[in-house]
Amino acid sequence: MNFDLIVIGSGPGGYVAAIRASQLGMKVAVVERAELGGICLNWGCIPTKALLKSASVYEYAHHAAEYGVVVDGTIKPDFAAIVARSRGVADNMSKGIQFLFKKNKIEVIQGFGKLVAPHKVEVTAADGTVTTVEANHIILATGARSRELPNLPIDGEKIIGYRQAMTLAKQPESMVVVGSGAIGSEFAYFYNAIGTKVTLVEFLPNIVPLEDEEVSKQLERSFKKAGIKVMTNSEVLSVDTTGEKCSVIIKTKKGEETVEADIVLSAVGIATNLEGLGLEEVGVANERGKVIVDEFYRTNIEGVYAIGDIVAGPALAHVASAEGICCVEKIAGMDVHPVDYSIIPGCTYTTPEVASVGLTEKKAIEAGHEVKVGKFPFTASGKATAAGARDGFVKVIFDAKDGKLLGAHLIGANVTEMVAEMVLAQNLGATGHQIIKAIHPHPTMSEAIMEAAAAAYGEVIHI
Amino acid sequence: MNFDLIVIGSGPGGYVAAIRASQLGMKVAVVERAELGGICLNWGCIPTKALLKSASVYEYAHHAAEYGVVVDGTIKPDFAAIVARSRGVADNMSKGIQFLFKKNKIEVIQGFGKLVAPHKVEVTAADGTVTTVEANHIILATGARSRELPNLPIDGEKIIGYRQAMTLAKQPESMVVVGSGAIGSEFAYFYNAIGTKVTLVEFLPNIVPLEDEEVSKQLERSFKKAGIKVMTNSEVLSVDTTGEKCSVIIKTKKGEETVEADIVLSAVGIATNLEGLGLEEVGVANERGKVIVDEFYRTNIEGVYAIGDIVAGPALAHVASAEGICCVEKIAGMDVHPVDYSIIPGCTYTTPEVASVGLTEKKAIEAGHEVKVGKFPFTASGKATAAGARDGFVKVIFDAKDGKLLGAHLIGANVTEMVAEMVLAQNLGATGHQIIKAIHPHPTMSEAIMEAAAAAYGEVIHI
Repeated sequence: MNFDLIVIGSGPGGYVAAIRASQLGMKVAVVERAELGGICLNWGCIPTKALLKSASVYEYAHHAAEYGVVVDGTIKPDFAAIVARSRGVADNMSKGIQFLFKKNKIEVIQGFGKLVAPHKVEVTAADGTVTTVEANHIILATGARSRELPNLPIDGEKIIGYRQAMTLAKQPESMVVVGSGAIGSEFAYFYNAIGTKVTLVEFLPNIVPLEDEEVSKQLERSFKKAGIKVMTNSEVLSVDTTGEKCSVIIKTKKGEETVEADIVLSAVGIATNLEGLGLEEVGVANERGKVIVDEFYRTNIEGVYAIGDIVAGPALAHVASAEGICCVEKIAGMDVHPVDYSIIPGCTYTTPEVASVGLTEKKAIEAGHEVKVGKFPFTASGKATAAGARDGFVKVIFDAKDGKLLGAHLIGANVTEMVAEMVLAQNLGATGHQIIKAIHPHPTMSEAIMEAAAAAYGEVIHI
Repeated sequence: MNFDLIVIGSGPGGYVAAIRASQLGMKVAVVERAELGGICLNWGCIPTKALLKSASVYEYAHHAAEYGVVVDGTIKPDFAAIVARSRGVADNMSKGIQFLFKKNKIEVIQGFGKLVAPHKVEVTAADGTVTTVEANHIILATGARSRELPNLPIDGEKIIGYRQAMTLAKQPESMVVVGSGAIGSEFAYFYNAIGTKVTLVEFLPNIVPLEDEEVSKQLERSFKKAGIKVMTNSEVLSVDTTGEKCSVIIKTKKGEETVEADIVLSAVGIATNLEGLGLEEVGVANERGKVIVDEFYRTNIEGVYAIGDIVAGPALAHVASAEGICCVEKIAGMDVHPVDYSIIPGCTYTTPEVASVGLTEKKAIEAGHEVKVGKFPFTASGKATAAGARDGFVKVIFDAKDGKLLGAHLIGANVTEMVAEMVLAQNLGATGHQIIKAIHPHPTMSEAIMEAAAAAYGEVIHI
């Protein structure tokens, strides 16, 4: 065997698994066909956060007078510079992975990896050279790409996916965003903020449809206030790209509507990268685009594992990383607990931000819990008022019987940083009163968590 | 008796105690000689956060080009508008307290309250009218004011305290800030950010001297990079205010130095408001400016309690609030746990922000703990890089024996919102591995907490 472990794919599942394995004494190789760091670092989480920061700075400059700052002149987004900064951030992070691989003595094999036998991977480089490497353990971590709908075929020019959306040659005047999950909502916010006319189309009754309904409604209000045209219960029937602009025919509850736009962004979910991976040849069980694994990410073939977007569970970077660590620690013979999929936070980095963990109110009730719900609005927060960021609230859901936290749903400034407290609380089985009695610093937005918990028990002070 | 409870002072100790008491069915009055909400709302926590937000917006506008935003023109702080916004925020919050008092049927008695007997308070209104009110329980919550040093007498014009510092008629060209606790450091940051030439003088070897030494050093580096002249191990000997500018003679390790400045801000701590409160007359025990209380804030006189800045413990708004709730719940006969003073967070809202809870490394070792220390720099954080906020780090300290969190020390953007997780962790006795295994969302600054914990155990991924 050449290696103890080969990881195919260097995204947040693969690279984290590789580094942890190296720490645990394994000899590790990573096979990567594109940039180190995968989609997350290069075309996802990281470069989008850079774009969103630019939008936020633009909005601050634009509203500077409200804070007593006088801008005597014009303020314009320099779209090319914004994109260039975002690419620079991604490159920087990707180089960071290169550094980490070097430091951890992880070999990088550039090319397309294919499983050819239980312990054997064939790598085809860009120039066609084929090499074969062997390892005791092989982790598949090939991730995902944009899902394509038949009536929304991505041409990369007028109908685009997230990749093109972060590197357009020029800022579109108008855009239709199809799908209002985290990716769709973030791009809708970003382009609207810098001056593009944005229509956001969602098939389901609420935007960010995985979130608690009250959060979705609040974000919809904020989006509309910001000027985004939000169309829920709506479906794109077809896009005519033959004219100068796209002509998007949208079916709504009230009938069909046509929206003209320079660009249509398809953000309707992801498709896993399983093609050509050798699953069928080697007999790795999979169904509906997901590799079937046990709680330690072992497939039906001994020595072959799969993590990240290509297995069941939410397709999120932090989930892939946790799965990678869990998988590798189990391989190393450590005493490992399986990942608890009921405590996975999710974040959407719009303005206001959205962050949540655990059950929504509706799901908690559906699951048979008797619930105690508390809510605290940021309008009643001193810090939010001082910061000029009063949109949003914290909503917490407790089990009425044992008082334990079942879920937390936050919308507002900085909530993507605040949700970690709720993640830890749920991991530790914290009760409402444990949260209430933890002295939160004043003045912070995080006090709203304490107050929301207090509201669930009739002890809230500031409302 | 007119009331079940009278609270003297409506700051974050007093007003929170009053509201909680009302919730618990007590008939409550609050005696206040000035604005409702006390120093915190009117002259402390809240208006300073408004000023700091303006400074932050100014800095964003100033550095907009780094984010791809073109400002074609001049950017200037409008000092009067910044101050006016800050006052507006304070007024808004103070009105909020008025609303909460009304909602909770709490009677407000305007005037100076004095204890004249164990259950009796005499209130002298601004017009000299004296009324006497009685209650079963009386909570003293009169707070504190700026401490004055003999060689730094506050004249309100050239040598000022924090109150004047937030309402100056015009922005000074230069300022010497004496004392680098939270108040001094925040004003130093604020004035420097908007263009005042600032010298920060600290008697002790480190600025923000209560923080972990590594945090202090990092803040000093950031302050110096931002252009603040930082003088540690230095003492103001005298200020000559007879000329146009103040001539400040400062004793340093290298000898005496004279700094000229328009304004000298004295931020050398606080003095409690016990004068004229009737302590001696009624026989309420006190020493060195603090009222002596037991763990439920009972003084030696039955029915008389004291909370907040006037009792031992850190003089912080959230501590006063927690004490108020604890005191009142005990009076109401609830099963109450005393406040745990080893788990009090502290925040300084400079750029970078500083936040901490629990023991510093030095204090943990002094207390006899064998420690495991982990540190993670924001330079290695994807979110920090995307946000252009790579200054700072998270440092966590665990007990090597039982793995429990002893303290957390954070410096960087948004850390004042992140420290709540560490507060809850310490309250719940969380171990390093419980923090490591709680899946923090990606990409956030809060991942640095998970990574710092992992660093303490040789499991860190991204450094």
